[in-house]
Amino acid sequence: MQKKEEGNAKLWGGRFKESASPIMERIGESVSFDKKLYKEDLEGSRAHAKMLHKIGILNAEELKQILEGLAQVESEIESGNFKYSSELEDIHMHIESRLTELKGEVGKKLHTARSRNDQVAQDTRLYVRNRILEIQERLESLRKALYTRASENVDTIIPGYTHLQVAQPVRASHFLLAYFWMFTRDTEFFEFAKENANLLVLGSGAMAGVNYQNDRDFLASELKTNGISPNSMDAVASRDHLLQFLFAATQTMLHASRFCEDIILYSSQEFGLVKLPDSLTTGSSIMPQKKNPDIAELIRGKSARVAGNLNHLIGLLKGLPLTYNRDLQEDKLAVFDAVETVLISLEGLEAMVSEMQFRPERGERSLKEGFATATDLADYLVGEKKIPFRTAHELVGRLVSECVERKENLFTIPEEIRTKISPHFSGKEYEKAVSLELSADKKASYGGTARSRQLEQLELARKSLESSSKN
Amino acid sequence: MQKKEEGNAKLWGGRFKESASPIMERIGESVSFDKKLYKEDLEGSRAHAKMLHKIGILNAEELKQILEGLAQVESEIESGNFKYSSELEDIHMHIESRLTELKGEVGKKLHTARSRNDQVAQDTRLYVRNRILEIQERLESLRKALYTRASENVDTIIPGYTHLQVAQPVRASHFLLAYFWMFTRDTEFFEFAKENANLLVLGSGAMAGVNYQNDRDFLASELKTNGISPNSMDAVASRDHLLQFLFAATQTMLHASRFCEDIILYSSQEFGLVKLPDSLTTGSSIMPQKKNPDIAELIRGKSARVAGNLNHLIGLLKGLPLTYNRDLQEDKLAVFDAVETVLISLEGLEAMVSEMQFRPERGERSLKEGFATATDLADYLVGEKKIPFRTAHELVGRLVSECVERKENLFTIPEEIRTKISPHFSGKEYEKAVSLELSADKKASYGGTARSRQLEQLELARKSLESSSKN
Amino acid sequence: MQKKEEGNAKLWGGRFKESASPIMERIGESVSFDKKLYKEDLEGSRAHAKMLHKIGILNAEELKQILEGLAQVESEIESGNFKYSSELEDIHMHIESRLTELKGEVGKKLHTARSRNDQVAQDTRLYVRNRILEIQERLESLRKALYTRASENVDTIIPGYTHLQVAQPVRASHFLLAYFWMFTRDTEFFEFAKENANLLVLGSGAMAGVNYQNDRDFLASELKTNGISPNSMDAVASRDHLLQFLFAATQTMLHASRFCEDIILYSSQEFGLVKLPDSLTTGSSIMPQKKNPDIAELIRGKSARVAGNLNHLIGLLKGLPLTYNRDLQEDKLAVFDAVETVLISLEGLEAMVSEMQFRPERGERSLKEGFATATDLADYLVGEKKIPFRTAHELVGRLVSECVERKENLFTIPEEIRTKISPHFSGKEYEKAVSLELSADKKASYGGTARSRQLEQLELARKSLESSSKN
Amino acid sequence: MQKKEEGNAKLWGGRFKESASPIMERIGESVSFDKKLYKEDLEGSRAHAKMLHKIGILNAEELKQILEGLAQVESEIESGNFKYSSELEDIHMHIESRLTELKGEVGKKLHTARSRNDQVAQDTRLYVRNRILEIQERLESLRKALYTRASENVDTIIPGYTHLQVAQPVRASHFLLAYFWMFTRDTEFFEFAKENANLLVLGSGAMAGVNYQNDRDFLASELKTNGISPNSMDAVASRDHLLQFLFAATQTMLHASRFCEDIILYSSQEFGLVKLPDSLTTGSSIMPQKKNPDIAELIRGKSARVAGNLNHLIGLLKGLPLTYNRDLQEDKLAVFDAVETVLISLEGLEAMVSEMQFRPERGERSLKEGFATATDLADYLVGEKKIPFRTAHELVGRLVSECVERKENLFTIPEEIRTKISPHFSGKEYEKAVSLELSADKKASYGGTARSRQLEQLELARKSLESSSKN
Repeated sequence: MQKKEEGNAKLWGGRFKESASPIMERIGESVSFDKKLYKEDLEGSRAHAKMLHKIGILNAEELKQILEGLAQVESEIESGNFKYSSELEDIHMHIESRLTELKGEVGKKLHTARSRNDQVAQDTRLYVRNRILEIQERLESLRKALYTRASENVDTIIPGYTHLQVAQPVRASHFLLAYFWMFTRDTEFFEFAKENANLLVLGSGAMAGVNYQNDRDFLASELKTNGISPNSMDAVASRDHLLQFLFAATQTMLHASRFCEDIILYSSQEFGLVKLPDSLTTGSSIMPQKKNPDIAELIRGKSARVAGNLNHLIGLLKGLPLTYNRDLQEDKLAVFDAVETVLISLEGLEAMVSEMQFRPERGERSLKEGFATATDLADYLVGEKKIPFRTAHELVGRLVSECVERKENLFTIPEEIRTKISPHFSGKEYEKAVSLELSADKKASYGGTARSRQLEQLELARKSLESSSKN
Repeated sequence: MQKKEEGNAKLWGGRFKESASPIMERIGESVSFDKKLYKEDLEGSRAHAKMLHKIGILNAEELKQILEGLAQVESEIESGNFKYSSELEDIHMHIESRLTELKGEVGKKLHTARSRNDQVAQDTRLYVRNRILEIQERLESLRKALYTRASENVDTIIPGYTHLQVAQPVRASHFLLAYFWMFTRDTEFFEFAKENANLLVLGSGAMAGVNYQNDRDFLASELKTNGISPNSMDAVASRDHLLQFLFAATQTMLHASRFCEDIILYSSQEFGLVKLPDSLTTGSSIMPQKKNPDIAELIRGKSARVAGNLNHLIGLLKGLPLTYNRDLQEDKLAVFDAVETVLISLEGLEAMVSEMQFRPERGERSLKEGFATATDLADYLVGEKKIPFRTAHELVGRLVSECVERKENLFTIPEEIRTKISPHFSGKEYEKAVSLELSADKKASYGGTARSRQLEQLELARKSLESSSKN
Repeated sequence: MQKKEEGNAKLWGGRFKESASPIMERIGESVSFDKKLYKEDLEGSRAHAKMLHKIGILNAEELKQILEGLAQVESEIESGNFKYSSELEDIHMHIESRLTELKGEVGKKLHTARSRNDQVAQDTRLYVRNRILEIQERLESLRKALYTRASENVDTIIPGYTHLQVAQPVRASHFLLAYFWMFTRDTEFFEFAKENANLLVLGSGAMAGVNYQNDRDFLASELKTNGISPNSMDAVASRDHLLQFLFAATQTMLHASRFCEDIILYSSQEFGLVKLPDSLTTGSSIMPQKKNPDIAELIRGKSARVAGNLNHLIGLLKGLPLTYNRDLQEDKLAVFDAVETVLISLEGLEAMVSEMQFRPERGERSLKEGFATATDLADYLVGEKKIPFRTAHELVGRLVSECVERKENLFTIPEEIRTKISPHFSGKEYEKAVSLELSADKKASYGGTARSRQLEQLELARKSLESSSKN
Repeated sequence: MQKKEEGNAKLWGGRFKESASPIMERIGESVSFDKKLYKEDLEGSRAHAKMLHKIGILNAEELKQILEGLAQVESEIESGNFKYSSELEDIHMHIESRLTELKGEVGKKLHTARSRNDQVAQDTRLYVRNRILEIQERLESLRKALYTRASENVDTIIPGYTHLQVAQPVRASHFLLAYFWMFTRDTEFFEFAKENANLLVLGSGAMAGVNYQNDRDFLASELKTNGISPNSMDAVASRDHLLQFLFAATQTMLHASRFCEDIILYSSQEFGLVKLPDSLTTGSSIMPQKKNPDIAELIRGKSARVAGNLNHLIGLLKGLPLTYNRDLQEDKLAVFDAVETVLISLEGLEAMVSEMQFRPERGERSLKEGFATATDLADYLVGEKKIPFRTAHELVGRLVSECVERKENLFTIPEEIRTKISPHFSGKEYEKAVSLELSADKKASYGGTARSRQLEQLELARKSLESSSKN
């Protein structure tokens, strides 16, 4: 319980007779994590300094000193020479304090017409905007990989599943493009979140506005934001920009988790539809089939982590009164963690997409063992042979039973057995009726698995990539 | 999903030797909740029937029969005369089965080129679109109420809080408009979710497409969707439309929870800033001050419920393989519950906003007891009297200490005491320096609490309402 | 909570000039769901009435009247003749109001020395206690089924998986008993929750205690609770009993979800390890292999729902000040839903456990195709033939490569090929070295898959069932 | 894509032609966080080595070498001289690899009859057990502080709240002890979790058991566990010990969040019931009333973080097939974070409890302004003066209205005004009827706020502390 000393780092410590207790200092520090915001804090501070000069609060020399100081702080941080201390609480205070050490009293002027409340709100908005740009690049790269692999696999027939049961033959391109469109939606969701985050809140002060005719249009133009927050209380209290970031991240990771589930299944001994390269798996030195799809498992697990982060922020915000509350200090933890998790997961997904190999022979085995085209055969009887629906189904049912009994399938059962059940089960026509590839091509509706529809869809995907790379 | 046989309600039951066990029937039925989709199911079925006619699968008479049958089903449901049975599992099968009862074999034709997988995906998309329209109406009505009350309360001075501590005087309009903008963002988020949900997925079949040249442009135009899903596997597997709905609902309810927290605090005996009408509270017959803000507490609680619903859907989707899995059956529960919760909560919020009364005298008491304008007084010494910052702070600090000791405040402490501390603490100038209203007006930055800024912001809000009511 | 006045259903409405607004009534009613508590409310009311008689507040005739009235209310509710009205808000008020209708003024005396705050806290505690007893019965029944099926499947060899890759042969009993022990832990967790819930809180009043020398020991003995809450504020504010119930329910459903995942995998076309009966699946009339494991999918989905319910309650409780807040009204929704979900899920699990059939031939295929005993072969070379570890691994590696090239496995590759690689790869010794069953029996550590260890574990399980049925 | 090199650190890399890709290495490493397990890993390894010696796999010299090596590893880690490298993936491999560097081939023998799967399961069980002991110490210290402050504040009268409305006068001891009992329940919950976690799983191997007659009783005794897992598949697949830890942590943090909410409210300008020391707050240099209760806000926020961690683990586990899956690697992140968060939060709570001061004069103001004893006055008329209930309420109602009109309260309104309404509103009897302290003492039910009941409850609390410190 000491009296406040001269030069005490706590900006608010003036009146306080006792200094912060050690637990207060430990529980209250955030610099251990919010130092990730240093670049955005410097970006905001530069814009603010220029604005202060523009409205006459800083003269040209003062501005120059501050900009020089901030540049030096930046180079110290980036070279690893910056000294952090939990006593200085957060990154904002670290930068301001170092600036003042370097440049003297003028450093303190930088905080004129600004509060830590609007400063941190702005920093996190810039952070979200900048990280979304990185995530969108990763998403585009992943989408390109999916597109490329889909182009290569139009003629790879694999089973399509419902209820994890073999349902119908589909082209592997169809499967890959399903994920292409999911990640396209994620890009769009991140775009929505980014546009909303990219708002000027600096200049809102502690919460009621500032006692200056600050020039927020100038700040907005310096920081390249889309607009200016119309309400200073909302500006410092809202964390919607972080919430929407986590929403988009959660949707993305759910898509990732589904892809990983498919890959884990498909690279199992039993499905065997997909082979991952050794470099993306772990395994056993003498069991060659055993290739653990660790990367897919890890990403599937990470999806739960991002959902946990979202949950953290929702719980944090629920029922908070206006305006700023210190609970908000740790909102960043959830977001920082999600940023890293999404980035590395997208990288991992892309590696898998690029290097996995389909094993169409295993797809064929599943489709044949699953009698996946029995329905097509019945349709053929009804459509081509004008056999009543009920009879057609009965005939096919009998054929399938015969196959099961003999441990055969529609492709291996001898013609003489087939034709005992129905004379229509013979020749080229029969073969066409049960063909996996022709079955796929019958799904000729828009969006379907027919070859022509896949080519059409690839063209759509190509255009989507083209238009996103233009932005 | 195969054709239903005579005397067996389960469409897929043909081959099965045993009928469903009672537990399977009880655990599997969804009609008890998905009957809420009846209108969307009928909407989709009508469009599908017309399409089947357009591509020659139904003739004119068959179409007429089906449309008549669907109309009768609708009127039976709406009049309460429709018979539900858990044996028929879901609303889709109920409608189809009743149609066939009414119109005979033609009823069965309706399911041509359609699967329950694409049907339910389309129904829930239409449902989300339709419910968002209702929610947006409610949001607009709430925003109007906030705008109106803000207009009436530009000159009501209340404390602004940070850390739940009295920070600075603000105009009550400022407080109300902070929520106006939050709910504006919610409307925009719902718009984003609605546009994404409003996609044609019907015509995707079980997952690989359908064996018909269906006319999906026609379907899209009948159902007034924005576009057509390019990938049938994604179409039946995706629940992003439900997820995004719940994201928007969660954001909205978080805003609601914060407003309710503020109202609960402000209508406490101790804050006393707001008075709710008897009709929105419960209370005690002889303790007049005790008015329990139940409606605000309930809505605050409901926000946790919607977050729980979101969590439910996230957990449901995580790690599901493509394409349709039966887990998805209960995705609707989370959404239905959230729809109702959001609608009734918005209605409750609007009632509170419309009828709550500010008690500015209590705001004044808090501000005065909190020495909320002590900083303004120091600023005055620095700005007007050119007293060095440090000295100014010391003088004001001494004045405040004197007040505390004497149980006075900056407004009640006698001038002779004040002027002993500093001769500047006298007269009109002193009064202006500590004035709550003038303090507010000094916050003249864009978005700030100064009167002119509030009027400017009200104008922005008016325009925002105008433009949204045009859509 | 004050006394109700003539002609006004709201007990607290006396002083209030305006009656509740329609939105207040709709948002505030809970009878639509809390009527599930009727039995516990009557149980608590009977005990309370007897206590009031014991301490002289009710005379013998009054007690008789009240008990008669409560009995009639009970029979009305159970016969479906009870009239609900949202105006009477909750089940507590319904019962009290009907009692007063039936028995006159004496009915009002029942609420002496009681508040809705302690009443509802007690009712939900009794409810949790009673429902846990039902859940524990279901769990015991499920554990018996697992035990029985394990006893029958000691000699069924299936693959054990890590990373969803075939790892080692295990006995199916081992797999089933893994779940036996999980559900045993769930029973214990519910026991913990039940013991904690089973506390007397009635007699705590609105929150500060009641103005009577009530006899809480008598109440505790009537309601068969474990103890008496020592702090009335905690008694009415705490929802730990609901929280712990949801914790136990979540753990249980996570176990259920893992079992369902295994069943979904194992009943896929590709794994084929398990066959579910038709009565528990849905399927296709002509694709016999396609049996959708809907019941497992539904339960897997329901696990997310219970986690959502837990999340709801956590969000509800976070940051609530003492003591009772109206947010708590909807805590019951999360619990009611979880109770039903857990009960039906356990029933569904038991049906699957009882009726599923293993297909050991498919397990054999996976194990052989996965070279699951290649490691055993290397161990044999090291252990029996004293070949250095590195050399042994190289030899087995070469053998496996040869198999892969020739599309053979360790069992089908001709002896003359094997012995070219190593003379040790011959005869009975080789066959024993790669035998699936013998491999299992080598895992002879306690808890391992060796036959003797499985029998030992079955005995432990039997004893565990015996001791739980004694309780 | 390089060939595997001699001495490759990846234990499983034998057969693999390509080394892990950089993304695999980055996404797969866990040593950056699981190094926290080093002590438990060494503890387990020592026990395992001794067991290997006991069953004859290690000779005495080998055991000596291994124990020496492990001791050196420990001292290197603790002195900060240990070299970490993400190539060695996790802490287990780091320790084993360093041991082998130090002691040669014998180091590799340590992994005999052990797998990373059972090793990590055991390590995390020991970790949970050890950390719970620390948390329980912190909880006991907090409970002592609550007990002490309660003892000091039996005669401090403050308002008790329902719906955040002043309800009844309570003793501050009552409020503090409410939290005492909550944290007592948390200790019990952690005890339950600890006992369940404290199980021997080592010796389960990869999942099917190990090929050795290992001595698990010896291991259990070395590691001081409660029992031995009966099923090796369950042993490596289960994370119930982490789940239950997070359940207990969540319950604890919910209690913490409610306490913090109360403290934030009570230290607001408006409530003013509690004063925190400067050392635990931040503030303004010239607004003495403004003391931001940052520590309480931070802990309230942290409660959402722990709930997010729980959510993370639930999502991770849902639907995982047996047995080990790599998703589980990051289960530790949720737990490590929760451990730190709970520990620092409990420390923060204790600091607040120990140093906060009640301001009973503000409690009095709230109670008086809230007419908290108006009901007591009516009870007095009914009980002592035999005035009919309805009349009594009307008289008190008129008195209260008179007070409100005159801006007086029941204590300040002149006797001559009072007695005009009723002659009973006079003298000492009136004063006693409205006395705050006497009102409290009327709540004489067990657990109530009467002085005698508080003393009785303090005695219970003392005994509870005594018995827990004995353990």
